[in-house]
Amino acid sequence: MDAKIINPFLEATINVLKTMAMLDPTPGKAFVKKDTVAHGDVSGIIGITGDAQGSMSISFSESCIKAVVQNLLGMPVTEINDEVRDAVGEITNMICGDARRRLDADNIHLQAGTPTIVSGKGHSITHINDGPRIAIPFDTSSGQFVIEVAFNK
Amino acid sequence: MDAKIINPFLEATINVLKTMAMLDPTPGKAFVKKDTVAHGDVSGIIGITGDAQGSMSISFSESCIKAVVQNLLGMPVTEINDEVRDAVGEITNMICGDARRRLDADNIHLQAGTPTIVSGKGHSITHINDGPRIAIPFDTSSGQFVIEVAFNK
Repeated sequence: MDAKIINPFLEATINVLKTMAMLDPTPGKAFVKKDTVAHGDVSGIIGITGDAQGSMSISFSESCIKAVVQNLLGMPVTEINDEVRDAVGEITNMICGDARRRLDADNIHLQAGTPTIVSGKGHSITHINDGPRIAIPFDTSSGQFVIEVAFNK
Repeated sequence: MDAKIINPFLEATINVLKTMAMLDPTPGKAFVKKDTVAHGDVSGIIGITGDAQGSMSISFSESCIKAVVQNLLGMPVTEINDEVRDAVGEITNMICGDARRRLDADNIHLQAGTPTIVSGKGHSITHINDGPRIAIPFDTSSGQFVIEVAFNK
């Protein structure tokens, strides 16, 4: 897995958050993960099959997801509730779908499962796979989130 | 989604834990989930595509996963560390693979992504899908775990 696969996820993330939540996230440097742990307060996870077998996650800090969902729904969000979890599912689906369309153009065809949402203060996410795991941290005016993409070799 | 899909996951779970960890888990009554929350201290999540699009999770209490991994590795387990997370990944893969083989025999063909592991005391898991979500709680002599399977209609 290289830039050919990771860049579409980066572009999809920026596109979806800009379009859906009027947020303009700034990507940090993507890095290959050596340790196992990404932390977040709420995460969306989706499995990927097809030309590559893997998984994608997006983990938000509580302040960041509250701002995202507030922009999305146009109303204040005070806690991580079912509406927030549904929104994280929708965002996870949209980022994965957008990235898959971009990869289709490069003749890499992926399918995706349905998203699973994890909530719990400071939980950690570990992708179990045979190939590299790439993390891309993003900054927003309301805090951080991180995308992780992992594929088997 | 009905017993035709859920039973192979139930049978696969008992088979994998018996074979790998010499545990004989007792299944409780499977139920359709109406609320969104399953709790665990460590969970394995895997995405599913093919004839049905969905996700599967297995969530262990800390006492239960320690006993499982202790039996698996033949040495004491004192904390949820990388070895435990790898073992949860392996268990998730094996249950999903075993269930898929059973479903193949019924002419239902599924593919699976790679597993993602969540750790964090009392985190919650929510499957986002259009169809039913089925939970099967299991009891062991060392505590509980729960399997959840969710598919789109």
